[in-house]
Amino acid sequence: MKIYGDRNSGNCLKVKWVCDYLALPYTWIDIDIMKGESRTADFLALNPWGQVPMVVLDDGRALAQSGAIIRYLARDSDLIPRDAFAAGKMDEWLFWEQYSHEPYVAVCRYQLVYLGKDVSELDPDKVRRGYLALDRMERRLRGAQFHVEGFSLADVALLAYTRLAHQGGFDLGRYPAVRRWISDAEKCLDLPPAS
Amino acid sequence: MKIYGDRNSGNCLKVKWVCDYLALPYTWIDIDIMKGESRTADFLALNPWGQVPMVVLDDGRALAQSGAIIRYLARDSDLIPRDAFAAGKMDEWLFWEQYSHEPYVAVCRYQLVYLGKDVSELDPDKVRRGYLALDRMERRLRGAQFHVEGFSLADVALLAYTRLAHQGGFDLGRYPAVRRWISDAEKCLDLPPAS
Repeated sequence: MKIYGDRNSGNCLKVKWVCDYLALPYTWIDIDIMKGESRTADFLALNPWGQVPMVVLDDGRALAQSGAIIRYLARDSDLIPRDAFAAGKMDEWLFWEQYSHEPYVAVCRYQLVYLGKDVSELDPDKVRRGYLALDRMERRLRGAQFHVEGFSLADVALLAYTRLAHQGGFDLGRYPAVRRWISDAEKCLDLPPAS
Repeated sequence: MKIYGDRNSGNCLKVKWVCDYLALPYTWIDIDIMKGESRTADFLALNPWGQVPMVVLDDGRALAQSGAIIRYLARDSDLIPRDAFAAGKMDEWLFWEQYSHEPYVAVCRYQLVYLGKDVSELDPDKVRRGYLALDRMERRLRGAQFHVEGFSLADVALLAYTRLAHQGGFDLGRYPAVRRWISDAEKCLDLPPAS
């Protein structure tokens, strides 16, 4: 299997982490989004979505969208709860992350780190919604070690940008339960603490 | 099972359609988003996400996020392909719809229909991205009856706002394959054509 991804993209790292956790063999092919490498004719022929991450199986079939990829790769593993309702709660977090967390927490980081903006130039509504997402996680994690029962894809998906939220100008000092969970989830994935 | 939903919300209708298709019994409880009924203290106690749709099972457990709900309700049904990779392609469309389709196609409709804006007041970038989403569907549907193999949750999810795209100012006249698919998908769900 080949993974086309940008190592600076949390969405791409989700796929890498799942493969590493499950010891799935893969070849990583670097695609530098900032250099437009996900928009070349060659890449678009392979992946009409023009997005990373994308995986190409050994038989040539391709799958895009981080949530769909990690759900496929982790099927029948302990990263997806066996109980159908618990798996539904995991999906609830996966869809919520893409709709109500990533567009704010990740986008603010992108604007500061890659576009070189200053915190004062961030859209205040994006900042507000990013904090609402972190508030929601804090409430959940005050009463539970992980987002669902046991470490799951919900934690993998949410870890990617939450551990880097400070790079987007968000103050994680307000969120002790989230910080405890980041540390626990990093240990599960055998990751060094984010800088 | 109770479904809390707003009949004007495509995200809520996805849940209703899946239940009707699978003949799952439910009680529908109207929540009028425009009247703030998803933000009352009573509703937030039930659903801290403050969002509809939400389902509450007979044992009191609650599930939010349309994608998670329909995936849970349709488990083990013919709305989810049995083949794992085909189910992955279905998930690809489900996540894509929430990230790259709904925030543009549905949001433009919301602004025209519910906020009373004029087409000229729409954010040109949202309109452009909405057309990119419709272009993507047209390319897929020129060569296939449905988004994956056979009618699936991908079609249910994409139908909700695509069939109403004209209410958001989008010209579906450009998309013959999408219009053919809308008609086919409406027949599968036994829906009258959208006005």
